[in-house]
Amino acid sequence: MITFVTSNRHKFEEVSAIFNDAGIELSWEQMKYEEIQADTTEEVSRNSCIKLIGQIHGDFFIEDTGLFIDSLKGFPGVYSSYVQKTIGNDGIIRLLKDRPDNAMFKTVLTAYINGTIKQFTGILEGSIASDERGEGGFGYDPVFIPSGYGKTLSEMDLTEKNRVSHRFRAVKGLVESLARNDH
Amino acid sequence: MITFVTSNRHKFEEVSAIFNDAGIELSWEQMKYEEIQADTTEEVSRNSCIKLIGQIHGDFFIEDTGLFIDSLKGFPGVYSSYVQKTIGNDGIIRLLKDRPDNAMFKTVLTAYINGTIKQFTGILEGSIASDERGEGGFGYDPVFIPSGYGKTLSEMDLTEKNRVSHRFRAVKGLVESLARNDH
Repeated sequence: MITFVTSNRHKFEEVSAIFNDAGIELSWEQMKYEEIQADTTEEVSRNSCIKLIGQIHGDFFIEDTGLFIDSLKGFPGVYSSYVQKTIGNDGIIRLLKDRPDNAMFKTVLTAYINGTIKQFTGILEGSIASDERGEGGFGYDPVFIPSGYGKTLSEMDLTEKNRVSHRFRAVKGLVESLARNDH
Repeated sequence: MITFVTSNRHKFEEVSAIFNDAGIELSWEQMKYEEIQADTTEEVSRNSCIKLIGQIHGDFFIEDTGLFIDSLKGFPGVYSSYVQKTIGNDGIIRLLKDRPDNAMFKTVLTAYINGTIKQFTGILEGSIASDERGEGGFGYDPVFIPSGYGKTLSEMDLTEKNRVSHRFRAVKGLVESLARNDH
């Protein structure tokens, strides 16, 4: 049993499906926590995890995902959530007009397990679509086309998204680590 | 005597000129400090100030300035510095194509004086230029036109900028408060 600390229902649903497949129990602590301004997702996430120690009962983890666009020097990066709430996908499309659209999604999980902090990372490379497409997912999913696919993450159902996604790749690392500790 | 904690030389120069005119001694602690992710400049700044107490000798203050664009829901706001380093002024101009360009600059000073935290705010209303103009200032100055002026902050010299700027208005509040305490 481990607790996922997140205020984001979409994230909990995605991660919960992966834990369910692995047969590991997951509980949900729906709360916000403090994040610092820093250059990397790893640093932001580690700092938040340390501050949560003592506040959450038992083992827990947090999740942070950023979209990093090459031609925008990694923007929106660690501030992806804020940027989505303000300029949104329309803003991202405007910024990329006449620019290369290579991008990556990166998820960092920071887990506190048996008194130790561990980080798990998942990366998905791709490109930014020239307009929003699809109804599934959330955030930047409607404009992100994974490399080798002809459609956005929003045009996939949850099962298909969970086969390729950055979030799945990071969670897989955590789940495998938990499974090893169980034996 | 009060210490201005900032890693930004441009900011120190502007603020120093205002203190000089007021005849109050200003020292410079050139360092970076931790900032949290939060919705308002006031909250970010107050949090950082509290963390600096005990690290800086004597009275001190910090400064944070954000550009808030109405039609972009306040973007780049509290992340103005990061946004300037990534998408820059060119990005701001692209985002505003065919959108209203009303904006404001807001400076928040948080000062720790005689064991008490005080905040001083300065606002400058204006609009975003359709291209970068001028050589002076820094950051968003080349694209910000103060209301009632036909030129950007970068097209003003430091004396002129310091007569109208958000930063000047905030520093004026602090300087007047310090002067009152002197008597």
